[in-house]
Amino acid sequence: MRYEELTIEGRNAVLEAFRSGKTIDKLFVLDGCQDGPIKSILREAKKQNTLINFVTKDRLDQISETKKHQGVIAFAAAYEYAEVEDLLKVAEEKGEPPFLLLLDNIEDPHNLGAIIRTANLAGAHGVIIPKRRAVGLTATVAKASAGAINYTPVAKVTNLSNTIKELKEKGLWFVCADMEGTTMYELDLKGPIGLVIGSEGEGVSKLVKENCDFIASIPMAGDIDSLNASVAAGILAYEIVRQRKL
Amino acid sequence: MRYEELTIEGRNAVLEAFRSGKTIDKLFVLDGCQDGPIKSILREAKKQNTLINFVTKDRLDQISETKKHQGVIAFAAAYEYAEVEDLLKVAEEKGEPPFLLLLDNIEDPHNLGAIIRTANLAGAHGVIIPKRRAVGLTATVAKASAGAINYTPVAKVTNLSNTIKELKEKGLWFVCADMEGTTMYELDLKGPIGLVIGSEGEGVSKLVKENCDFIASIPMAGDIDSLNASVAAGILAYEIVRQRKL
Repeated sequence: MRYEELTIEGRNAVLEAFRSGKTIDKLFVLDGCQDGPIKSILREAKKQNTLINFVTKDRLDQISETKKHQGVIAFAAAYEYAEVEDLLKVAEEKGEPPFLLLLDNIEDPHNLGAIIRTANLAGAHGVIIPKRRAVGLTATVAKASAGAINYTPVAKVTNLSNTIKELKEKGLWFVCADMEGTTMYELDLKGPIGLVIGSEGEGVSKLVKENCDFIASIPMAGDIDSLNASVAAGILAYEIVRQRKL
Repeated sequence: MRYEELTIEGRNAVLEAFRSGKTIDKLFVLDGCQDGPIKSILREAKKQNTLINFVTKDRLDQISETKKHQGVIAFAAAYEYAEVEDLLKVAEEKGEPPFLLLLDNIEDPHNLGAIIRTANLAGAHGVIIPKRRAVGLTATVAKASAGAINYTPVAKVTNLSNTIKELKEKGLWFVCADMEGTTMYELDLKGPIGLVIGSEGEGVSKLVKENCDFIASIPMAGDIDSLNASVAAGILAYEIVRQRKL
């Protein structure tokens, strides 16, 4: 397992971190702040014997990485990356065919956070990201994930193509998103599946695309080239959800 | 019509602005920058007799609102807000039943931009936003829209509920997104439709919800509360696209 230090910022993100059982080393709260969400956070912090510091807005601004702390910042010991095996175990425990999201070099932390959030709500069993040329699990990602990062495991791999090959041997099918593909409604996306989303600028890289079984396209009626990466991930993930419900 | 001054930043956004025929008053390009996208932009600028200034990175950083100018910033005369009537005319000209997106107080410019981008590609005929308590068409929105703001008309209205009432009289149905609603796959979303998306924190406001004909929910399997607003808009908009294709 690899670890990364992390500050968690914003009310939803901090509350979700407590509720998911994450160990919070230290909590910074805006002095005098007494509203409902802050009270819930303080209650959780007391339950877990977290060290609470009441501080000024200036102090919070100084600690903050995202500059959107909403009056509360938590220091977590670490975010833990999962192993690919762990993701498959989640599927097995739920008795569901595996449903994974693989991100080919997503660089925008807001997109990565939004995709982890979508993975959680679409019932995907985890997210796989590459070690190089991609954003990791930073505070901005955690905030953009609205707490989903505490529930949905994220694995980091050296080579996405190799991981795809290994997972194919375990029975997964891989579909990547590309404008040149078959309209997603015409593909059978019901089995054990890995959905591959390309980077914001360049889409899915050539080698990764060659290793996919299907190429799915989202029908596009407009004048511009492509959807936002996290929106495209959401639309494709929910086409898988729809087909699995049939 | 109302006008707002605008700087357009980033390669895709500037190139799309030229290609859509928008009048660019002034272009600032990083001195010495010679790659493909910049050359395309310079070619378009020469065609349109745009005043070109080659400047230093410091100068660009100083002008930049988004701080992500990618070596190019354009000053456009104005972004034009459309009238609601204009949106209906677009549908009429295309011979399609109207398909509008209404945003109930979206405050994040990245979300607004991503939603305009989605509206364009999903074939929606326009976007309606309220005048108060919502972000307008800023440079950040334009960049996040990846140029879609040049093609998809955006109307700004005083009161979203009143606009819904008026459009109902013209035969539109309104569906809003809410967790308490009917699963979107079970609703008939094929007719002339307005899709209402709520704000990031609070969802669709009570009065607006009461004026909607249907409440649609996106099935959620996970541990957290809600999807990112632009992702939710994308998933719902594409459910409308899917049903219209049946």
